[in-house]
Amino acid sequence: MRMVDLISKKRNGEELTKQEIDFIIEGYTNENIPDYQMSALAMAIYFQDMTNSERVHLTMAMAESGDQIDLSDIKGIKVDKHSTGGVGDTTTLILAPLVASVGVPVAKMSGRGLGHTGGTVDKLESIKGFEVELGSKKFNELVNTNNIAVVGQSGNLTPADKKLYGLRDVTATVNSIPLIASSIMSKKIASGADAIVLDVKTGSGAFMKDIEGAKELAQAMVQIGNGAGRNTIAVISDMNQPLGFAIGNALEVKEAIDTLKGEGPADLHELCLTLGSQMVYLAGEAETIDQARSMLEHAIETGLALEKFKTFIASQGGDESVVDQPSKLPAAAYTFEVEAKEDGYVSEITADEIGIAASILGAGRTTKDSIIDLAVGLVLNKKVGDKVTKGESLVTIHSNSESVTEAVEKIYASYTITQKVVERHPLVYDIIHE
Amino acid sequence: MRMVDLISKKRNGEELTKQEIDFIIEGYTNENIPDYQMSALAMAIYFQDMTNSERVHLTMAMAESGDQIDLSDIKGIKVDKHSTGGVGDTTTLILAPLVASVGVPVAKMSGRGLGHTGGTVDKLESIKGFEVELGSKKFNELVNTNNIAVVGQSGNLTPADKKLYGLRDVTATVNSIPLIASSIMSKKIASGADAIVLDVKTGSGAFMKDIEGAKELAQAMVQIGNGAGRNTIAVISDMNQPLGFAIGNALEVKEAIDTLKGEGPADLHELCLTLGSQMVYLAGEAETIDQARSMLEHAIETGLALEKFKTFIASQGGDESVVDQPSKLPAAAYTFEVEAKEDGYVSEITADEIGIAASILGAGRTTKDSIIDLAVGLVLNKKVGDKVTKGESLVTIHSNSESVTEAVEKIYASYTITQKVVERHPLVYDIIHE
Repeated sequence: MRMVDLISKKRNGEELTKQEIDFIIEGYTNENIPDYQMSALAMAIYFQDMTNSERVHLTMAMAESGDQIDLSDIKGIKVDKHSTGGVGDTTTLILAPLVASVGVPVAKMSGRGLGHTGGTVDKLESIKGFEVELGSKKFNELVNTNNIAVVGQSGNLTPADKKLYGLRDVTATVNSIPLIASSIMSKKIASGADAIVLDVKTGSGAFMKDIEGAKELAQAMVQIGNGAGRNTIAVISDMNQPLGFAIGNALEVKEAIDTLKGEGPADLHELCLTLGSQMVYLAGEAETIDQARSMLEHAIETGLALEKFKTFIASQGGDESVVDQPSKLPAAAYTFEVEAKEDGYVSEITADEIGIAASILGAGRTTKDSIIDLAVGLVLNKKVGDKVTKGESLVTIHSNSESVTEAVEKIYASYTITQKVVERHPLVYDIIHE
Repeated sequence: MRMVDLISKKRNGEELTKQEIDFIIEGYTNENIPDYQMSALAMAIYFQDMTNSERVHLTMAMAESGDQIDLSDIKGIKVDKHSTGGVGDTTTLILAPLVASVGVPVAKMSGRGLGHTGGTVDKLESIKGFEVELGSKKFNELVNTNNIAVVGQSGNLTPADKKLYGLRDVTATVNSIPLIASSIMSKKIASGADAIVLDVKTGSGAFMKDIEGAKELAQAMVQIGNGAGRNTIAVISDMNQPLGFAIGNALEVKEAIDTLKGEGPADLHELCLTLGSQMVYLAGEAETIDQARSMLEHAIETGLALEKFKTFIASQGGDESVVDQPSKLPAAAYTFEVEAKEDGYVSEITADEIGIAASILGAGRTTKDSIIDLAVGLVLNKKVGDKVTKGESLVTIHSNSESVTEAVEKIYASYTITQKVVERHPLVYDIIHE
């Protein structure tokens, strides 16, 4: 088999076989196939697309290109959740204890990531004593005992995807549905998920700006997941503005606690119930989505979910008292209010720019070695559709620096205030089952 | 400017500017742009094509990527000829003295090449004493004095094209009209041509198997040439069988002498008159193509063309007496006749396979360092449309080895004999002016 012939085959719009795709991914991983052939293939895929069976083969070949997490010692159906990214997305922190509290095993491996704020693992580290490095035996034990454990990513997962992702970034082949979908799904499958709930974001702050694109991506991933024998469902949700109010690590932990108490922002609360009920349903803990949702609402109302969060924190060495006393979380030295310059209605909050504002304060990493300031960040006091009066606070800045000029500029740039009443975006656009 | 943005632009079907194309070709030549970005761009070009102005910019950028031959010391309009390749193509050996004899300056730089037989320079070296390495001053002097000189390729011409050509070969991006056309034209322009006559082959033995493809390529090159200020014309000619009878170095010199005497194979004679009259016309030595053709016919009839060949040989130190005594050319030790196994008509001679037969005998190079046997080769005794009787010779093998089994097999494989009368292919399908 020669790579040039396989590039040619795909270029001509023919379907690659499983053997051919395995040859490509194995060869690329072990460097028998050079970048210049892989980038030509990626561009051919950009133009010629891939059939669903090619997508499944590509996903599985990448999933199998490195270490694979074995969760078979954990009882029950392990459901993983993945979000395509956005700003202020605290859902994992809430969903993990929430669904665990109704009997769904949550064996979560989470990254630190590069972004406007830290990853789930960073956020959890804002709780004193919380340990994210567990051996796999301890990890499995905790999930079997408490239905929940979260560890930092370790091992060499999907090296083929890592290489290809880096290559696509510099060869204008990022925007390809089969390549995006197989990249995401390969990581989920290598992480040992039996079933997968996808949160596909759409809107100005998301990778997929329009709903049609988001649906296409969601469908591609659901088909790959189901084709690979993993029950998969996708929720298309809004990212025309940040989710919830908090953007920042400790601030998001506080918001997660509020939400688990039933006192969180409406959009974050609703999205967690939507995603959570899909997870409970896929885990086989409920007969219907409606039943799953009722179970989750009940867990919040009765305090079961919050209790599970405490158990979870304690089980990984963290100070569970932060749940009742969030003031024990890292706090920034200064707060500043960013005040509205005019009366009107908030029509837009560009998630990208407000994320950059949080990043400027030190809430996120710009390089792998950056040190995150867990205390800093933003709390949005006004969201899209809200009425504002001149002088009212749009955003509260939590900063450890006295100078926040640059962040303030970004915040003003991200907010659009109009004179007309603004209609709010729906939160969930669609749910994709196949 | 970032290469990834330019790949993206082309991927989206937008037109690249001259500045952008210069940035790409300069960056690729000096290795600031890696192969993996160039191959992604090449694949994007494969799908999105290039406008005529992009093609001109690409051609010029590649022509300017290395050394450029300066022929300005030579008087007159320097017309170069290029053939897209085939088997047994002796036209350059004939055309050079033929058009020189009617006043067209021929300043030819010719390669050795890898192929079934040697290049023009190899063929000329089968004439004792012939020197293909001339300094540029001597070269210019000879053209100014005799209208003709031929030298081996030297210097670093079109390094960008060399790199890109090698990359395309392994990334399934060879078959792209803008990339093929700009590759050929960049070399012609870097070689200093003022005007260019292209011989675009079509048929089973050519790169372009069908006439439509050949026309498209011809048009692309003619438009590039004219767009770059070089008068350019393309002849679409047949390569469903080898041109002429001889395949091999000394054998083709002998055939060239025959043709210059007016005693050559009909197809080779006709193609030389067709291409030659276009060259004479572009050089401004005739008012019309018909007039140019009459001048060339006259040069053959009166012996002027043959005389020019002698002068040319002598001026580069060669033994001109071979022209009157071709037996002085290197001769092979053995000849073998490949006899027809049945009665019928020749319907096909696959040029590729018969070329391989010549190569097996030692007439061509398989690697840069191969040593060519100038004496060996094939003479076709039957061509497409000819009637054959069982036992008649199809081909005469000239070999320095007693064992020619492999070559004989290839020759049989290349000939198809049918029972029906076979219609001959036209020699010239079209002439493209714009």
